[in-house]
Amino acid sequence: MEAAAPFHFRHRRLVEFADTDLAGIVHFANFFRYVEAAEHAFFRSLGFSIHTSEGSRHDGWPRIEVSCKYLRPARFQETVEVCLRLTELRTTSLSYAFAILAADSPEKTVLATGTFGIIHVEIDSATREIRKTPIPPALRAKLEAAMKTSA
Amino acid sequence: MEAAAPFHFRHRRLVEFADTDLAGIVHFANFFRYVEAAEHAFFRSLGFSIHTSEGSRHDGWPRIEVSCKYLRPARFQETVEVCLRLTELRTTSLSYAFAILAADSPEKTVLATGTFGIIHVEIDSATREIRKTPIPPALRAKLEAAMKTSA
Amino acid sequence: MEAAAPFHFRHRRLVEFADTDLAGIVHFANFFRYVEAAEHAFFRSLGFSIHTSEGSRHDGWPRIEVSCKYLRPARFQETVEVCLRLTELRTTSLSYAFAILAADSPEKTVLATGTFGIIHVEIDSATREIRKTPIPPALRAKLEAAMKTSA
Amino acid sequence: MEAAAPFHFRHRRLVEFADTDLAGIVHFANFFRYVEAAEHAFFRSLGFSIHTSEGSRHDGWPRIEVSCKYLRPARFQETVEVCLRLTELRTTSLSYAFAILAADSPEKTVLATGTFGIIHVEIDSATREIRKTPIPPALRAKLEAAMKTSA
Repeated sequence: MEAAAPFHFRHRRLVEFADTDLAGIVHFANFFRYVEAAEHAFFRSLGFSIHTSEGSRHDGWPRIEVSCKYLRPARFQETVEVCLRLTELRTTSLSYAFAILAADSPEKTVLATGTFGIIHVEIDSATREIRKTPIPPALRAKLEAAMKTSA
Repeated sequence: MEAAAPFHFRHRRLVEFADTDLAGIVHFANFFRYVEAAEHAFFRSLGFSIHTSEGSRHDGWPRIEVSCKYLRPARFQETVEVCLRLTELRTTSLSYAFAILAADSPEKTVLATGTFGIIHVEIDSATREIRKTPIPPALRAKLEAAMKTSA
Repeated sequence: MEAAAPFHFRHRRLVEFADTDLAGIVHFANFFRYVEAAEHAFFRSLGFSIHTSEGSRHDGWPRIEVSCKYLRPARFQETVEVCLRLTELRTTSLSYAFAILAADSPEKTVLATGTFGIIHVEIDSATREIRKTPIPPALRAKLEAAMKTSA
Repeated sequence: MEAAAPFHFRHRRLVEFADTDLAGIVHFANFFRYVEAAEHAFFRSLGFSIHTSEGSRHDGWPRIEVSCKYLRPARFQETVEVCLRLTELRTTSLSYAFAILAADSPEKTVLATGTFGIIHVEIDSATREIRKTPIPPALRAKLEAAMKTSA
């Protein structure tokens, strides 16, 4: 993924102490939490939530596949910027690429890049049944519009 | 809490890399996860689970209050032993004290001590209603018996 | 702790998906991460960092004791406000009380209250030696001034 | 990755409450912690540690790239078995594939598969310098031997 590529959403956060490990840097698995939080902020920016409940019926977006390449470590109290680019929008699922940048550095050094594939499902918490479900038209329209913008 | 006090349950685990922080030691909040996992192992040892579901009705044990004193740090790949002592058994709630020991040290150095208060509830995940509920008699009998043992 | 008490610092954050557990609420141990992050933001607001390094010498603030009472659960995508009140300032250590409020509720419902005791130390990462050290005068002056304010 | 492929190491663990999220299943990022812990257990099984320190010099294995495909969710108190297969051993780095199985199911259902690429480095914690370093011959010999076994 090109770090210079146009993104559809950007989300900043501060690295917290509890995110680090004994190597003195952000634990690698926490980059996935950062990307997930950016994804949820992206959905909120479109007026939607990644998870809604009504009685025992839940609407959610489980992860299907994820990947990450680690280029530079992130450190305590550093601001990172998570950049998202929608790459594919299908009937019940979508894919996006991400880059995590060092927001405090003048050149916005790329710390990591990767991809997420997520699928839209209905979950019945009573029966534990999980069923894939088309992306609602109103959300799809917003996602399509977002794909034409640059953030 | 006396580290020498008789305990009713002991549970060992290895400190994992992801449990540490940039100070090179286990992040303080993770001691609470260690104690919780020991508590759940204790319940399993009695033939019960800390959390059960039937349709949208859940049976659980939210935490009411917790405390911890930190005496020595725990480090990566060290084995810690979490020791539990039931201190009070009430109609819908119970309290216990804990000590976390350095299991690899000859003198089993005390790393931390503290207390948990937990309450038995029924949760309706459809309505989100949470209602405190008496501890089931079969579990109560096991807990009372455990209080007479020493681990 | 009175939720209405005057606080010296307030810090807001959004509950993230990864902070929740299968009970559908923020996992109890994560409240300690929230408070710690607010404490670090408080230090930054005074122009200091909770953790600094120079070669193998680190300056840090390990936790000595912590406690928390849980009154109401916090939920995904809810904004919580962590309020801190310094309660004691000693030569090498300090204590503070906290309240976590539901920032979105009109009455700012109290979700949790508790206390932290932390100690100032120097750590030599080469020798692993940890030694308690007086709070630097410049930081002490800022903390004393903060105790006279209300946030 | 074929779930039926021969593996070089297997590591079991119990899903803990704190590993789950509000969807009632293990949070996707925690699968990476599970795999990492299995990798560290694998190194220990060979008589080595994934992280060693001597003064301010550390020997470690940062992650270069990771990926995961999610097939089935893992649930609270379920035993999962993390299976590792070394796929490439280079001068300073190595790659492995993993599968996470539902150990309690008769057919050992595959919950997830994926890959890790890790690199051997020396870190100077005083200067923060990170330098890639050949895999020590004694460890290399053990890894090569492990690649000829089946677990």
